[in-house]
Amino acid sequence: MELPSKLLETAVNEIAQLPGIGKRTALRLALHLLRQPLDQTRNLSDSLFELRSKISYCEKCHNISDNSICQICNSPKRDHSLICVVEDVRDVMAIENTGLFKGVYHVLGGKINPIEGIGPGQLKIKTLVEKIAEGNVEEVIFALSSTMEGDTTNFYIYKQIKDFNVKTSTIARGVAIGDELEYADEVTLGRSLLYRVPFENSLKQN
Amino acid sequence: MELPSKLLETAVNEIAQLPGIGKRTALRLALHLLRQPLDQTRNLSDSLFELRSKISYCEKCHNISDNSICQICNSPKRDHSLICVVEDVRDVMAIENTGLFKGVYHVLGGKINPIEGIGPGQLKIKTLVEKIAEGNVEEVIFALSSTMEGDTTNFYIYKQIKDFNVKTSTIARGVAIGDELEYADEVTLGRSLLYRVPFENSLKQN
Repeated sequence: MELPSKLLETAVNEIAQLPGIGKRTALRLALHLLRQPLDQTRNLSDSLFELRSKISYCEKCHNISDNSICQICNSPKRDHSLICVVEDVRDVMAIENTGLFKGVYHVLGGKINPIEGIGPGQLKIKTLVEKIAEGNVEEVIFALSSTMEGDTTNFYIYKQIKDFNVKTSTIARGVAIGDELEYADEVTLGRSLLYRVPFENSLKQN
Repeated sequence: MELPSKLLETAVNEIAQLPGIGKRTALRLALHLLRQPLDQTRNLSDSLFELRSKISYCEKCHNISDNSICQICNSPKRDHSLICVVEDVRDVMAIENTGLFKGVYHVLGGKINPIEGIGPGQLKIKTLVEKIAEGNVEEVIFALSSTMEGDTTNFYIYKQIKDFNVKTSTIARGVAIGDELEYADEVTLGRSLLYRVPFENSLKQN
């Protein structure tokens, strides 16, 4: 793709480095910005750099937060002995949206992924182990996605904390509520049979 | 979607103003930047602002160009009496890729679109009419997309130049080469029958 301007080419190449955005989409986005007032690009450009350079994380759970301790970790209403281990802020948001979790989180910031060069050292695993070693944690819930990377990460953490007096669990996997059995994949359906729950549980509200 | 940080929220809202990018994708992109080195965000942010604030256009055809006259308009090898009217730089690139057009372009910068508030005054129509009034143009080819907006724009320009001694044409519409007839839509197939060309033409090498 030969572009008629160096400025345009640089911008397109930079945009195309974002995940899921190819050169064609990048060009479409760049041309869109050119049709909008200068202020829109200034705001976009500034907000990206501000985000990246000034972002701060909660000292306790490593979730993105404007304060040194996030709202959840600061709340006396939450059960601080129950820790849910998640990958990033989106998972925290998803779980918070259910309104059913009263514990706190621990945001790893990714999964162990040798192909992308992400080792355990780049994730917030050490602070999790330290937290558990302090002895105030009763249960750790693993809520990473069930991919090979997620399973590896779960197991890596499990090995480090299994000698402490702490319960470990993973979120239940099974056929989603509202889904037809015939469309569920075999692994999920198999798991949901293997780990069936007492019928009375399904009668409970939520 | 409630985000745990004002910085993140601002960035997500700005990214989500780009066409085809919703809040979820915007969040994914913002989180991606946070995982990358600061330099990547700096480069992206700078390149966007530089593009928008320093971009220049060819004085003759209004295509994006780093010089005051673009390469195409500057070339003595091009036929300057043949003008192809297009919407934006992507159309110029597409036509240049065919290697079959030896004339020059006139980039309107959009189509007349009352719904989005784009009137003829915001497009580079006046300079096209002036160019034709000078009398050195023999033919104008309309190559806008065949939407209602494209047709409106074509007709608007046509009305302004029809009294000058200039030929007007539109690019041929028809069933694409390699496409099966049964999958072509009725309008396209109908047009390709109505505007059939002498069989000998199809024997010519391009």
